Amino acid sequence: MHVVVNAATSADGKLSSRRREQVAISGEPDFARMDRLRAESDAIVVGVGTVLADDPHLTVKDEALCERRVENDRPEQPARVVVDSSGRTPVDAAILDDAAPTYVCLSDDAPVDRRANLADHATLVSAGDDRVDLLRAFATLQEEGLERLMVEGGGELIFSLFECGLVDELRTYVGGTVIGGRDAPTLADGAGFVEDFPSLALERVERIDDGALLCWTVED
Amino acid sequence: MHVVVNAATSADGKLSSRRREQVAISGEPDFARMDRLRAESDAIVVGVGTVLADDPHLTVKDEALCERRVENDRPEQPARVVVDSSGRTPVDAAILDDAAPTYVCLSDDAPVDRRANLADHATLVSAGDDRVDLLRAFATLQEEGLERLMVEGGGELIFSLFECGLVDELRTYVGGTVIGGRDAPTLADGAGFVEDFPSLALERVERIDDGALLCWTVED
Repeated sequence: MHVVVNAATSADGKLSSRRREQVAISGEPDFARMDRLRAESDAIVVGVGTVLADDPHLTVKDEALCERRVENDRPEQPARVVVDSSGRTPVDAAILDDAAPTYVCLSDDAPVDRRANLADHATLVSAGDDRVDLLRAFATLQEEGLERLMVEGGGELIFSLFECGLVDELRTYVGGTVIGGRDAPTLADGAGFVEDFPSLALERVERIDDGALLCWTVED
Repeated sequence: MHVVVNAATSADGKLSSRRREQVAISGEPDFARMDRLRAESDAIVVGVGTVLADDPHLTVKDEALCERRVENDRPEQPARVVVDSSGRTPVDAAILDDAAPTYVCLSDDAPVDRRANLADHATLVSAGDDRVDLLRAFATLQEEGLERLMVEGGGELIFSLFECGLVDELRTYVGGTVIGGRDAPTLADGAGFVEDFPSLALERVERIDDGALLCWTVED
């Protein structure tokens, strides 16, 4: 399995404002890059906070990229995955439509009624007592044939993935704005590291549009 | 007056861990760049949180750079400035030694005894009722002949400077580590913007050592 985290941040490392409202950070050239990265992936992964805040669709937008997937005997769209410990994904979320298969990763504590409602729209993956056990959940996704995962956020999920050593690559597009805010979501939130900080190797620095793309690989 | 904010952040935009402990983000090549930037400045500015957490000295380390300043009829060292609304800078702080002149910017609410103690070690600048009025304080610094200011942190001060439109340039060295933490200090903390986000133009992207230097100018 190969996990790429991709996100756009402000110059001060924020994903959105303290109100969780999206801020225009990147433009067309970076959207196109992100779409290509989606098309290369078997699944696009987000945390439930991102679903609740942005209601993303997480599909490949460029039809030519979808056609190329089909030519290569792959599904037209990558699968979609929500990490959602207590089953809070609304059943009318865009991510649960029929544009692509969707997996919802739940903990054992997710209420039965929510679980039943979600089961009508997605494949459920149960792992972990009160929080999703990401190692087990991702192992199940791998058994389902999802080898190349692209994670789009948010900061809580990204931190948890670094914490359990599941991230292989980090790609950040740093855009020309300052969001600020001690309570604004950042690229990696959670409890934070106080020692044994993950070490990254810078593979590529590239100017795209009005911002910079930094491509890192995670060192062992 | 020209204000340059310079800081090193992790790949996720943090200045330090949630414990406010410094993390090795940059190495010798970036320290040398920072030392040159200090030597080009009339004053180095930090917030009191940075003084309390790190007790920095804020002097130019490279003697050749100091000699060049003297040859150009400038003081051997740039001045040092602490923005410290309530006068919490300890009198034994490294920033108050006699290696360079120091200014402490206080609000009118700073207790008289702290003010008196600090007056023995620094030039006091009073501006603002309960928080330092940065526009007025910086105008006073300019009257003192400090035209080119380099701000080194922390995130609260940097946000406040963006908020009142005092920043001309932002230079961030993004290093190859992840710190994480929803409570870890970021490049721009404070309340955060929810609209009218400052707009930055990317002037330069450069690989330095194991990280990337992003140089931005602030657009009107």
